[in-house]
Amino acid sequence: MSYRQTLDFLLYDWLNVEALQQRPRFADHSRETFASVMDTCERMARERFAPFNRQADTEEPRVVVDHGGERVHLPQASHDAGRAYAESGMLAAAQDYEIGGMQLPCVVQMAANSFLARAGGNVAGGAMLTSGNANLLMVHGTPMQQTVFAKQEFAGRFSGTMCLSEPQAGSSLSDVATRATPDGVDFETDPLGARYRLRGNKMWISNGEHELTENIIHLVLAKIPGSDGKLIAGTRGISLFIVPKKLVGADGEPTGERNDVALAGLNHKLGNRGIPNTLLNFGEGKYPVRGRSGAIGYLVGNPHEGLRCMFHMMNEARIAVGMGATMLGYAGYEASLEYAKNRPQGRPAGVGGKDASKPQVRIIEHADIKRMLLAQKSYCEGALALELYCAQLVDELRSGTPEASAEAALMLEMLTPIAKSWPSEWCLEANSLAIQVHGGYGYTRDFPVEQYWRDNRLNMIHEGTHGIQALDLLGRKVVMQSGAGLELLASKVGATIARARTVPALAEQADALTAALKHLGAATKAAWSTGNPDEALANATPYLQAFGHVVLAWVWLDVALCAQPKLANATADDVALLQGKLAACTYFFSYELPKIGAWLKVVETRDPTCRTMDEAWF
Amino acid sequence: MSYRQTLDFLLYDWLNVEALQQRPRFADHSRETFASVMDTCERMARERFAPFNRQADTEEPRVVVDHGGERVHLPQASHDAGRAYAESGMLAAAQDYEIGGMQLPCVVQMAANSFLARAGGNVAGGAMLTSGNANLLMVHGTPMQQTVFAKQEFAGRFSGTMCLSEPQAGSSLSDVATRATPDGVDFETDPLGARYRLRGNKMWISNGEHELTENIIHLVLAKIPGSDGKLIAGTRGISLFIVPKKLVGADGEPTGERNDVALAGLNHKLGNRGIPNTLLNFGEGKYPVRGRSGAIGYLVGNPHEGLRCMFHMMNEARIAVGMGATMLGYAGYEASLEYAKNRPQGRPAGVGGKDASKPQVRIIEHADIKRMLLAQKSYCEGALALELYCAQLVDELRSGTPEASAEAALMLEMLTPIAKSWPSEWCLEANSLAIQVHGGYGYTRDFPVEQYWRDNRLNMIHEGTHGIQALDLLGRKVVMQSGAGLELLASKVGATIARARTVPALAEQADALTAALKHLGAATKAAWSTGNPDEALANATPYLQAFGHVVLAWVWLDVALCAQPKLANATADDVALLQGKLAACTYFFSYELPKIGAWLKVVETRDPTCRTMDEAWF
Repeated sequence: MSYRQTLDFLLYDWLNVEALQQRPRFADHSRETFASVMDTCERMARERFAPFNRQADTEEPRVVVDHGGERVHLPQASHDAGRAYAESGMLAAAQDYEIGGMQLPCVVQMAANSFLARAGGNVAGGAMLTSGNANLLMVHGTPMQQTVFAKQEFAGRFSGTMCLSEPQAGSSLSDVATRATPDGVDFETDPLGARYRLRGNKMWISNGEHELTENIIHLVLAKIPGSDGKLIAGTRGISLFIVPKKLVGADGEPTGERNDVALAGLNHKLGNRGIPNTLLNFGEGKYPVRGRSGAIGYLVGNPHEGLRCMFHMMNEARIAVGMGATMLGYAGYEASLEYAKNRPQGRPAGVGGKDASKPQVRIIEHADIKRMLLAQKSYCEGALALELYCAQLVDELRSGTPEASAEAALMLEMLTPIAKSWPSEWCLEANSLAIQVHGGYGYTRDFPVEQYWRDNRLNMIHEGTHGIQALDLLGRKVVMQSGAGLELLASKVGATIARARTVPALAEQADALTAALKHLGAATKAAWSTGNPDEALANATPYLQAFGHVVLAWVWLDVALCAQPKLANATADDVALLQGKLAACTYFFSYELPKIGAWLKVVETRDPTCRTMDEAWF
Repeated sequence: MSYRQTLDFLLYDWLNVEALQQRPRFADHSRETFASVMDTCERMARERFAPFNRQADTEEPRVVVDHGGERVHLPQASHDAGRAYAESGMLAAAQDYEIGGMQLPCVVQMAANSFLARAGGNVAGGAMLTSGNANLLMVHGTPMQQTVFAKQEFAGRFSGTMCLSEPQAGSSLSDVATRATPDGVDFETDPLGARYRLRGNKMWISNGEHELTENIIHLVLAKIPGSDGKLIAGTRGISLFIVPKKLVGADGEPTGERNDVALAGLNHKLGNRGIPNTLLNFGEGKYPVRGRSGAIGYLVGNPHEGLRCMFHMMNEARIAVGMGATMLGYAGYEASLEYAKNRPQGRPAGVGGKDASKPQVRIIEHADIKRMLLAQKSYCEGALALELYCAQLVDELRSGTPEASAEAALMLEMLTPIAKSWPSEWCLEANSLAIQVHGGYGYTRDFPVEQYWRDNRLNMIHEGTHGIQALDLLGRKVVMQSGAGLELLASKVGATIARARTVPALAEQADALTAALKHLGAATKAAWSTGNPDEALANATPYLQAFGHVVLAWVWLDVALCAQPKLANATADDVALLQGKLAACTYFFSYELPKIGAWLKVVETRDPTCRTMDEAWF
């Protein structure tokens, strides 16, 4: 079963993506245009990305100091891949025709990009940041900011970053201390936006410095001091700024002058090494602008609304992280499946014991190897289905009826913490199983799976840790609008259950999901029953885990509902694909869904063991 | 709470190791002599091992070719640490005085060695292989073999390996193809043992080539062909041989002649890089002996009983792997605890929300961070307790009454798969949690936790994969002697439960363990109820996981039973230690033990999803 077959099944059979072409925005599109974009990305991934994924790991970014200051050196392959990607037009694929886009549905854009992620996220993996950065400007920027910055990003001339964290402010963005002060008396009349000088230090900035593009557009969170010179405490004080590495004129062309943004160092990571992870100093005077220190930044949106604006990019990035984690998992699944089909080792036990005089069998014939492959399949294909579903919600949000759009927005709010956290935990586990299937070879660097595992380990941390996603889900999302989001999700799950009840082969799973959903709802209520956030949120992470497994069980049941009726009239090859989906669903319900019992137990009892643990007892 | 305090508590309060000094073998020992050995190892670990653990990772072994053939280069620190360890006498610590040992109880030897493992297993981590190799010879070798080989190993002049796997025979040892043929007509009269010529290829051989010691003693599995020249199929055909890298005389001194064992290459690993992982060619003629190809090997024990002999070393190595995994987990726990105590980030939610005007709190004040620390504590201290318990069983085996010895042997058979597999899975998870506690810093190479995580990933694979341990447990151990092993273990667990029932604070946990034990027993029966190994063993790995969690719950309850009554009269510092043990026990019962439900569900239903999965459906 090829990845493309699974992708096509999910897009066309499950999500019915072709229906989108009935909408005016997508009228020029058809399954043929979608296929053509996916062909392009599949080929590009095979030729430009996959062959260099290991090289990007071993030749990690390094700082070179020369007359132009500090540069970050990357392998030539990263330059070539980045250029190929920009030239393909994929950076603007979902944008309007008038700014050079293809008006491709987001769900198809994500599907096409998945080939790149599957080839390894180390080679020019920053493209998602660039389009996310530009997408934010298309929503919150001025027309001039869109023309000068976003359009150049979509064209691949400029790349983008998101600069949130600081040494003292990682998960806690309310502690951002970068200051932005008006730059001159005419600061409000700059055609590029209200002009400020920024001073502060940012860290964990992916792609913060490199020479893959002519310019780098940093989107930077900073605080504008009040008249007393003090910063407003908390996230309300945060504003958002465009800070280009090189200053540009109103025509979008670099003026030749460098902005006061300096590379302070690189973080050396355990994985995902191809992507430079930088510390940046803003406004320390290393590159004075007009004789003075302070990095020039242009305000985006209103002052003090920076975090709200930034969430546009953060939510997109969170889904992108989930998708990246998913495809690393998938790559490991494919590698271990291939290995298992070819490696002879051992013999079946069978009644009467092994017969050592017979030849060894291929390890895919062992039940435990099949278990590890089926687990990977259920994690990675399930996660893929969820991410595509989320991308389709984005299309609904943008081009659906007002009612559908509002509903999609609410569903996205509910699902984003899961779309980010679930693959980063379980597709990492998939990578560990891929190593295990390989036996000793799995831990050698001669096989790709150990790198996938290392690369994937970052995904539970960046763009909001597991703990942050858990607080977002249980502390905000399930209680917002009096629980409207949870109700909406429950109604969607309920609809799938109702349909599954009518299919005898899936009725048992429908019952199991009913019970799981009920359990989740009861645990949610019990967690909040005392109204004390400390008690409710003490076990937010087990709650996130249980919630994720219920969502994935729902996704799998829905996918199985699509596969089951097609079995009767399918070709032999299609039968294999459909049976595979049904088996993965069965696996998930038998082996995975029962895990929620242990997670929800501590949630519903508001188990105090952890939060009351005394520091001295550790 | 220092590691030493926990170790002392487990040794003296829980296991009552001091009672061993009443036995003649340990009559010279006391808590003071034990402390002195542990002091030595703690200091050696701090000075000679810990500072070089990262260096051993970055300067991994490399092959140097010069006039003497291929050598493996290691950092000077590995040489220094290895010498210091040999000079400490620890290699022979548990051996008889007459061969230079200290007659130290195994449990104390393990406790002392744990300091080295906690400092990182990359620096001279081969010591356990050397003593395991020599220990095997002390049981199965001739007096001459013991004098010539084992004694030099205990003295640190020679080091040891175990050569089992071959390219086509990893988990499946019955497919070993290395051949051993008699060397000359006088082959049976060599004073070092019946002399054979070995020809074959071995791989995954840790410490197979280096210059840390004067000589390397390989223990090699090979098959002696029958009169028809054919090898006996299966493990019954396997014999065991001593194959020294350099030939030695009957006086134990190298003759100056090299044996026909050649380094064919090194495996480059994702972790545990300081230990050379070699491919060795035996008898290919690179170093002809007396003008002919074929590596000289001396038979150990009887022909065709090689695997039985080898299991002596394998069982010891399996417990050593478990201990290594445990201490990597513990090192990560300590590192993340230290980080959590010092890193300010965020504020408590509290009723009414966060107050951003207040200073940030240290992350150890967040419930989710405490959860991750407590999970690590419960995994690593629980695993430590289990490994020490197993070591005490070895002492019982060797110096107990005949009845106690037989019982200890049976318990060891039952517990070895758990002692090997459980820490390698859960202390790896602990390392992942240690990364998570560090946030972004966790994935950088500036902090030690990412290396612990990489180093630990090997432990689920080498010395018998998880899958192999699972088959050993469910396929062999629980059914052997009509289930006598399982009954013995259940009676031990039952005794702990009975005592816990009388302690009100632990009665609830006693009930939970009763239910868990019953569930495990029922699932074991259900798995085998059809008598079909394919059905019973299809879910052997989830069974292993559930079994492990039940064993660990038992260990924790037993430890808590020791801690609880001491609370009343304890000093403040002791109270913290005791409360920590009780909290870890509570955590394990609340958050971990309930996980067995999901694992046992597929075992007891003999869930066929995986074993019936068609290859074409993946």
